Amino acid sequence: MQWTQARRAQKMNPSVIREILKVTEKPGIISFAGGLPSPKTFPISAFQAACDKVLREDGHAALQYAASEGFAPLREQVAAMLPWPVDPAQVLITTGSQQGLDLVAKILVDEGSRVLVETPTYLGALQAFTPAEPDIVSVASDDQGVDLDDLRAKAEGARFFYVLPNFQNPTGRTMSEARRAALSAEATRLGLPIVEDNPYGDLWFDQPPPLPLTARNPEGCIYLGSFSKVLAPGLRLGFMVAPKSLYPKLLQAKQAADLHSPGFNQRMVAEVMKDGFLDRHVPTIRALYKTQRDAMLAALQRHMPEGVQWNTPAGGMFLWARLPEGMNAAQLLPRAVERGVAFVPGWAFYAGQADARTLRLSFVTASVAQINTGIAALADAIREQSLASALPSTVEST
Amino acid sequence: MQWTQARRAQKMNPSVIREILKVTEKPGIISFAGGLPSPKTFPISAFQAACDKVLREDGHAALQYAASEGFAPLREQVAAMLPWPVDPAQVLITTGSQQGLDLVAKILVDEGSRVLVETPTYLGALQAFTPAEPDIVSVASDDQGVDLDDLRAKAEGARFFYVLPNFQNPTGRTMSEARRAALSAEATRLGLPIVEDNPYGDLWFDQPPPLPLTARNPEGCIYLGSFSKVLAPGLRLGFMVAPKSLYPKLLQAKQAADLHSPGFNQRMVAEVMKDGFLDRHVPTIRALYKTQRDAMLAALQRHMPEGVQWNTPAGGMFLWARLPEGMNAAQLLPRAVERGVAFVPGWAFYAGQADARTLRLSFVTASVAQINTGIAALADAIREQSLASALPSTVEST
Repeated sequence: MQWTQARRAQKMNPSVIREILKVTEKPGIISFAGGLPSPKTFPISAFQAACDKVLREDGHAALQYAASEGFAPLREQVAAMLPWPVDPAQVLITTGSQQGLDLVAKILVDEGSRVLVETPTYLGALQAFTPAEPDIVSVASDDQGVDLDDLRAKAEGARFFYVLPNFQNPTGRTMSEARRAALSAEATRLGLPIVEDNPYGDLWFDQPPPLPLTARNPEGCIYLGSFSKVLAPGLRLGFMVAPKSLYPKLLQAKQAADLHSPGFNQRMVAEVMKDGFLDRHVPTIRALYKTQRDAMLAALQRHMPEGVQWNTPAGGMFLWARLPEGMNAAQLLPRAVERGVAFVPGWAFYAGQADARTLRLSFVTASVAQINTGIAALADAIREQSLASALPSTVEST
Repeated sequence: MQWTQARRAQKMNPSVIREILKVTEKPGIISFAGGLPSPKTFPISAFQAACDKVLREDGHAALQYAASEGFAPLREQVAAMLPWPVDPAQVLITTGSQQGLDLVAKILVDEGSRVLVETPTYLGALQAFTPAEPDIVSVASDDQGVDLDDLRAKAEGARFFYVLPNFQNPTGRTMSEARRAALSAEATRLGLPIVEDNPYGDLWFDQPPPLPLTARNPEGCIYLGSFSKVLAPGLRLGFMVAPKSLYPKLLQAKQAADLHSPGFNQRMVAEVMKDGFLDRHVPTIRALYKTQRDAMLAALQRHMPEGVQWNTPAGGMFLWARLPEGMNAAQLLPRAVERGVAFVPGWAFYAGQADARTLRLSFVTASVAQINTGIAALADAIREQSLASALPSTVEST
């Protein structure tokens, strides 16, 4: 049979992370690789009560086809919880915030359109944009966020700049207030639209992050949010807030993609969120993740050989580390897995030239005890790899 | 702000049906317009028991991120219930079967690729294919299914032929066994892939429809199925069965689109379907819809003026009617709505030249009493419109 695949299908690749996760699914492996929220944080009894109530009181509507825009009370709750004035009519409920990325690409990206991303950036966004065949351009970034000079140099003709200002995936870094203000002003001056992805913003440890970029210029930004990190990923619910000029096209793309997100799940989440539930629940997630971040920082301090660097994320799920010069995280991985610990090599997150020394460590899935054991094992693997690289290569091949 | 929309966004249009549904959402309107399953058929207590069990016994996994392929036991159940040998590894769980259409277009359609569809065809498929910018070509069809001479004439270079052989949306017609056999042979000879959409196949009234096209040539077909009509649409779960050569690309497209369909919902459905639930439940849906189809046929017979034609669907949700020569279903609609009844004008379902006299009537949402009242009102509207069209147009404009 003559199946001819689309050109874009050739450009699509399996998620490196999911491939790595398969390798590391051996029993007993301590994984810092996945971006899986701790299941301890899932409010199961609240979901049980919500399921029961929704099916009992509103079962027919919850199980029927529904509006592509989303469940009206949930759209109102989303608008009310955001820190700038949002009309519920601007809120579109999506099947996870991943779907928001697919819809954005569908309505804004032609083949060859320039799309700017941070260095490094969220791999899932690169995958979501790929079917629209963009020309993805990586903008230099530092600990404060994106490099504005480089952004300016690359902005011409770009359809948008995709950015995660809070506790970024993969680096865990947060864009400073000064950089946000400057970026917002610069984007307005350049006429450069921004797609702001904020799945982790609520997971701050000591203080909330600065205001979103979208709050500073709602007409110039599309904002993506998620319930995956504050409630549970398995319901696949996220949302986007779009300027009114773009909303109708996003809605049409949404309708064509899956008609609407599950109305049952939307009602469950709306029910759970009533009466300020998140105000009580999210602090427990913050406290747990902060403890685990602290455990990882302490273990890194305790075990890592000289030359290994890492940052101190102020929230979120990930920490970013860098191996000593001459080492390569992808080569390290099999050795680490042999010692019972897994991570994601940083190269997977670069749209352009990768820094092969980087790696992403998630501190949310493993317990404190596992973090201690796992980081010690990782440090051993690094020392071993470091010795191996120091030997003449002929020795290794004999 | 300079938002530049993608070329494909210009080609996207709001669903005519959803626009019509908005107009017809006045209280008291009897709607034959929507394709909404009767909520009476939703097995609410089975879902209650399933929710409770899933959250109690498997809550952490149900609420966590999961494999893009879908929940393994559900994939096995799908493979086992299909009437040809299917390896669960070929089953991909989708966010409604609508998502299957989006994924198919993503991996098989380039800008300008020829895609063949029936005349008329499912509007949602046209919308799902549009973002990939295909050249959609309408193949002539009759009561037995697609016209093979016309298919042959148009097949060259086509990426696939999209077809709904069972109780088609919008016409309610079923492709005969002879036509299926001939189509399958012809498609193989032409090397023409088939995308077979079968959301309604289980809703037969007197006898099951002939074997799916995919069963006759699994390597040459992608098969789309849905839980929306046999369980409930509000969970947004469907599935596709793909040849092993295409599966990896479909999976990558799925991953990029929404990571995975909600694991909680997949477990609910898997739990509900245990122990042959569908074998007991689906016959009750068939019986209800058959009663309602019979009521609609009888009411049409009783009320319709001469010259109005309609078919007798052997299953599914829709009946297809045609107004007398010179009349136009789109012009009839406002008059019908005034009289308290709604339908979808047939032109919405044509990829090419439309037959303006056609209309789609759903017999599943309204009760028997509503069907009787609604069809009588529709007949009155047709008589009134017929009189108005018979008058010289100058009279109408004064």
